[in-house]
Amino acid sequence: MNINRRDFFSTAAAGTVGLAAIPGILSASMLPGKKKQKGILSSLKTGDVILFQGDSITDAGREKEKQQSNSPWSFGYGYAYLAAANLLNTRSAQNLSIYNRGISGNKVYQLADRWQKDCFDLKPNLLSILIGVNDFWHKLDGKYDGTVEKYENDYRQLLNLTKKILPDVKLVIGEPFAVLGCSAVNEKWYPEFDSYRASSKKLANEFDAIFIPYQAIFDEAQKQAPGKYWTGDGVHPSMAGSSLMAEAWLKAVK
Amino acid sequence: MNINRRDFFSTAAAGTVGLAAIPGILSASMLPGKKKQKGILSSLKTGDVILFQGDSITDAGREKEKQQSNSPWSFGYGYAYLAAANLLNTRSAQNLSIYNRGISGNKVYQLADRWQKDCFDLKPNLLSILIGVNDFWHKLDGKYDGTVEKYENDYRQLLNLTKKILPDVKLVIGEPFAVLGCSAVNEKWYPEFDSYRASSKKLANEFDAIFIPYQAIFDEAQKQAPGKYWTGDGVHPSMAGSSLMAEAWLKAVK
Repeated sequence: MNINRRDFFSTAAAGTVGLAAIPGILSASMLPGKKKQKGILSSLKTGDVILFQGDSITDAGREKEKQQSNSPWSFGYGYAYLAAANLLNTRSAQNLSIYNRGISGNKVYQLADRWQKDCFDLKPNLLSILIGVNDFWHKLDGKYDGTVEKYENDYRQLLNLTKKILPDVKLVIGEPFAVLGCSAVNEKWYPEFDSYRASSKKLANEFDAIFIPYQAIFDEAQKQAPGKYWTGDGVHPSMAGSSLMAEAWLKAVK
Repeated sequence: MNINRRDFFSTAAAGTVGLAAIPGILSASMLPGKKKQKGILSSLKTGDVILFQGDSITDAGREKEKQQSNSPWSFGYGYAYLAAANLLNTRSAQNLSIYNRGISGNKVYQLADRWQKDCFDLKPNLLSILIGVNDFWHKLDGKYDGTVEKYENDYRQLLNLTKKILPDVKLVIGEPFAVLGCSAVNEKWYPEFDSYRASSKKLANEFDAIFIPYQAIFDEAQKQAPGKYWTGDGVHPSMAGSSLMAEAWLKAVK
């Protein structure tokens, strides 16, 4: 290479580019984590496994035939892909294996149904779950009759089992969110949907998980651009929304 | 939201998370840009259009039916998607329209064949091109007989026409790259392939474009992890490689 490799941006900090939110969206919407929760990423060891789990927001159109780690086809285009690509780049020496096993339409009980194959068999060291919007949403058209109590109890049972089988697993719990005024989210969602959000936060506290306050993040983001810019239907994020979620995820586990 | 939104990371700088390469990969491989080239992003105006053009590395499996702006399906999973998602997030107030029109297998003359429809019709304010690996690679199996002179002359002609039709367009030229020792790249590539790289850099200088030295970046990255970690076949980047390229792109235009 006929270039001078050492004369540009010699400080480590200058290596940080991109993924910088409009100043304020994340700083205004994310609480400081408990001290013992911070630094999850720096505690990861070489060869560790990270697993993203959830519904369509995590699935994001991934192909489900091969379900490989570190493969873009197996990731879809969502926040899990954006966060994982960043981790694989910035932690290249750690040889991480990162999986996405989110499935569109899933509610908590459906995670439980496939938890052996899609969680325990992969032996994750870090497990990130985002689930709950369908546990509420699918009730609106009468095709599901769960309650917030069922959501919370099923979720708690799943987490208890997870901690039993994987006692050292580090947990990240994402808050279910919705953006009012977009095509799929209307006044009928409230106040009931808020109780699902509250349950996810309660469980994050119970299980000492990192909690990602996606609702506050999307609320704050709407000060910069309309809700539809971040999520067309109020549930599924756009490119901008997925990037914002990935940024929040990375900030939370950093 | 029952959270305190203002007591965490109140400085603007702290909003920057993620996309931070192993300290050194980019600082060691990217030259400082000319002053007049810097700040392309900050010169973008509300409603501006950004276009990514190139071959399979840019295409990255995008669906080509709808070819919408700001749509993950129309972007594929490559560096263009990662960079665009970041821009749409971090510049949400600007209402940018970002397109990917890379097509797998393309050489320069094939860009030229579709330049009216896939460039001029979109009226980009910022045009990013990564082309050249196929102009060399496709010669190896005897299916193409172009030379580096044809590559450079065709490319120059395309850029001249572009500056004529779009005199104010801001240009980014990515260096074609290859990683030796991966499945598709062997000693037969050298030294001839290097001349294609040199031509792309020469043209970037001629047209006052931002030049992204992807070869130096991938060379430097191999100090952190093997070539196959960054690109399985030596041509098409992995998730880690795509993230590294996006990070370099964002740093270059910042």
